[in-house]
Amino acid sequence: MNAKTPKESLTILTDLVLPGETNPLENLFGGELLARMDRASSIAARRHCKRIVVTATVNHVAFTKAVPVGSVLTIEAKVSRAFRSSMEIFVDVWIEDRESGERSKVNEGIYTFVAVNEMGTLVKVPELIPETDLEKERFEGALRRKQMSLVLSKKMKPADATELRSLFIED
Amino acid sequence: MNAKTPKESLTILTDLVLPGETNPLENLFGGELLARMDRASSIAARRHCKRIVVTATVNHVAFTKAVPVGSVLTIEAKVSRAFRSSMEIFVDVWIEDRESGERSKVNEGIYTFVAVNEMGTLVKVPELIPETDLEKERFEGALRRKQMSLVLSKKMKPADATELRSLFIED
Amino acid sequence: MNAKTPKESLTILTDLVLPGETNPLENLFGGELLARMDRASSIAARRHCKRIVVTATVNHVAFTKAVPVGSVLTIEAKVSRAFRSSMEIFVDVWIEDRESGERSKVNEGIYTFVAVNEMGTLVKVPELIPETDLEKERFEGALRRKQMSLVLSKKMKPADATELRSLFIED
Amino acid sequence: MNAKTPKESLTILTDLVLPGETNPLENLFGGELLARMDRASSIAARRHCKRIVVTATVNHVAFTKAVPVGSVLTIEAKVSRAFRSSMEIFVDVWIEDRESGERSKVNEGIYTFVAVNEMGTLVKVPELIPETDLEKERFEGALRRKQMSLVLSKKMKPADATELRSLFIED
Amino acid sequence: MNAKTPKESLTILTDLVLPGETNPLENLFGGELLARMDRASSIAARRHCKRIVVTATVNHVAFTKAVPVGSVLTIEAKVSRAFRSSMEIFVDVWIEDRESGERSKVNEGIYTFVAVNEMGTLVKVPELIPETDLEKERFEGALRRKQMSLVLSKKMKPADATELRSLFIED
Amino acid sequence: MNAKTPKESLTILTDLVLPGETNPLENLFGGELLARMDRASSIAARRHCKRIVVTATVNHVAFTKAVPVGSVLTIEAKVSRAFRSSMEIFVDVWIEDRESGERSKVNEGIYTFVAVNEMGTLVKVPELIPETDLEKERFEGALRRKQMSLVLSKKMKPADATELRSLFIED
Repeated sequence: MNAKTPKESLTILTDLVLPGETNPLENLFGGELLARMDRASSIAARRHCKRIVVTATVNHVAFTKAVPVGSVLTIEAKVSRAFRSSMEIFVDVWIEDRESGERSKVNEGIYTFVAVNEMGTLVKVPELIPETDLEKERFEGALRRKQMSLVLSKKMKPADATELRSLFIED
Repeated sequence: MNAKTPKESLTILTDLVLPGETNPLENLFGGELLARMDRASSIAARRHCKRIVVTATVNHVAFTKAVPVGSVLTIEAKVSRAFRSSMEIFVDVWIEDRESGERSKVNEGIYTFVAVNEMGTLVKVPELIPETDLEKERFEGALRRKQMSLVLSKKMKPADATELRSLFIED
Repeated sequence: MNAKTPKESLTILTDLVLPGETNPLENLFGGELLARMDRASSIAARRHCKRIVVTATVNHVAFTKAVPVGSVLTIEAKVSRAFRSSMEIFVDVWIEDRESGERSKVNEGIYTFVAVNEMGTLVKVPELIPETDLEKERFEGALRRKQMSLVLSKKMKPADATELRSLFIED
Repeated sequence: MNAKTPKESLTILTDLVLPGETNPLENLFGGELLARMDRASSIAARRHCKRIVVTATVNHVAFTKAVPVGSVLTIEAKVSRAFRSSMEIFVDVWIEDRESGERSKVNEGIYTFVAVNEMGTLVKVPELIPETDLEKERFEGALRRKQMSLVLSKKMKPADATELRSLFIED
Repeated sequence: MNAKTPKESLTILTDLVLPGETNPLENLFGGELLARMDRASSIAARRHCKRIVVTATVNHVAFTKAVPVGSVLTIEAKVSRAFRSSMEIFVDVWIEDRESGERSKVNEGIYTFVAVNEMGTLVKVPELIPETDLEKERFEGALRRKQMSLVLSKKMKPADATELRSLFIED
Repeated sequence: MNAKTPKESLTILTDLVLPGETNPLENLFGGELLARMDRASSIAARRHCKRIVVTATVNHVAFTKAVPVGSVLTIEAKVSRAFRSSMEIFVDVWIEDRESGERSKVNEGIYTFVAVNEMGTLVKVPELIPETDLEKERFEGALRRKQMSLVLSKKMKPADATELRSLFIED
């Protein structure tokens, strides 16, 4: 199984924000955005491992800015780190100004998917080799985030979360 | 502004899983579940503070079990802690066996909402007084989760995340 | 087959009214409300009998008050009477004022479901024992409503609708 | 205001049943059918009175036959009687066999709409003159159905429902 | 296989334009209209040939006039010519003024469907005999449109498009 | 107003095909695909001209291959030629094999949009300079397609369609 780079899984979902997908303030409804991000990141995960993939966790999504009805919304998802059977996906979300064409970031999310076979059993996924600086930074942080997720859900003791712990001890 | 208990914000959303909301494996599509959880937790937040509320972050959602088409799905959302303008909401998701009526947990999520006025400015929200053991446990963990969220998004230095840090130092 | 009480089938569906579900007056579209009520009442029927259930008739739905976009809408459905294979379900619909939290009734409906096995053959359902005054009143009226439905659809002669007839003779 | 005939309000809504609109048995979901019937009958009411119309009650809908996914479904709605501000609409629903083209009835419903002006005040609607035998029969029954609806919702005493009462007394 | 007339395949789809189907200018979203036209014309094709039908091409759709939210939209589809296995369908789209009841044309489209058996193999369809002047005119033009479609997609050389060519030579 | 290249308007919409968007053969419903193509091409048109854009015509869409439920579907839209106020958009649609990652073309479409100001008046759009061979070929064909569209809709006499005519005379 050959290692892959993040750009091989890059998935772009550009779409309009129509009135049927808005909240009463006429901005894109948060739940609809979460759903679009889930679809884009599941495609990125599938492109990385070529297997059936299933959402395991949503690790973090931060809503920075409202997305008004009529916006052109671009979602970009890429694998940020691969573990044995699981993949962490970073999702960046942008809107663009119609007149200037300038993009501004509205949202960022981290999802985890696992790869399974037809019987639903976990299968191994290819390694990820980050290339750009941002990809390397996200790769580095992934293990800490994984440990934090395990600690918060009580599947790991704080003492065993060595990578995460160092963040506080080093300080 | 009087303090409130979690049960005052309890929101129950029981609904069917129809074929139009499933993924190709005929289970409820992850994104659709995230959207339903977002709607239920926004109602819980609004019931707590009686103000306009907006999704700020999805802190953690863990998908434990697939939800087959035709399931009766129950989402229960309650405020788990209130800060100055923000509220952490715990969302528990269940399906029930048709014949025995027994419920099993499929999913658990943590969302954060902020309260705003008509101009979009942050406003204060009532304090939360947890009552049951589970409510107290979730209340206790909320500060650590908030600090972790700030540390991971680089809005707080690990050294300042005292509550979170103690988890690793004490150990 | 043990008798059941109405509260064993109580089903609560609390959800937002989003712009994609409204009519051109920016109120919840009548057809969408009928659909939500049908889903909630089918769950109540299923919880009562633990079998597959199918909508048989909508006996009466009265739209008392418009439901503006942005409302929190709560639907409560409970079995009001069980016959041999059919169950009458009462559905009450409320909205709540965001600031005061006060609920006001917007809609009330009566649906009938039948229980079937996997082959689609009618099967027996448990008896219903009403508890509260309102439950008893609705239980009492159910037979009259059933007869009226049969008379109006010409499946019963007025002379045989004894329960219903007494309403006019007694007078 | 000139009287109208039922055929002037005839509204035909022919459409496919797609998988996104089905229940877990792969038949058209009851709530979706209620919504389509509501839309068709609201158009019929509007064509009769040329005013804004609002759903007042669903008087009766009987589901006779399941509608399998892939069906061609035809809904025909016509005003069956006009009162001062309200109109009763009969809705007949058919599917057709693909090979023979033969139609079979799957569903029949009765809805009531009221006409309002821009302020939401009730306004008068034109009289209805039935033409065919079926239209005359439905016209005749409308008053009885209206009284029954009022009696069941306790807005009219049985003694005052003269038209309805005669059904039982005459017998 | 007996020839058929256009009126035997006439399909009428009258429906409301709800806010969830609009673009940010509060008119019916173009893509939603294309979808409704596709459904209506597939029913017309199926009624003509009594077989399974599949969309082959959208030959031309012209959007003449915006369709405001709240409109009553009527789509009328009829087979305009049958070839060996394919059928050309003309779709006319109207809105009506609520007060006067007058209809105005908003859109016109031409779709092509093919008939297949359960294995997906093309099967023959009945001939079409146009009756009215408009039906005859559309029937005449169909061959030219078919050749133009083949020429533009490079499946036919301009020299072989005799019917189409005559349009330019005659001139 | 500076001329633009096609790649400046390139719009990529990658998304899953979920069961709620399929026809009864479990392939993506044609109308839903037309709607997605319309959204992607409207974004491409808007990126080219930085103005409000409205669908004017769908010139041609050919469905080459069925799109099974569960597919990853990629739509790529680019401006192929700009006229005074109108823009022709080419839309290419692909699915990819999950295991090999190979893409295959399923569909191709040509849409025309016009640019308008806030009053709905037509406004000028920038010129387009094609770069690649395929872009040049599509640019060349655009005028012929425009004339054909005008001839078929009787807004231009065949004799005046000089570009198109030459196709048949030269031959």
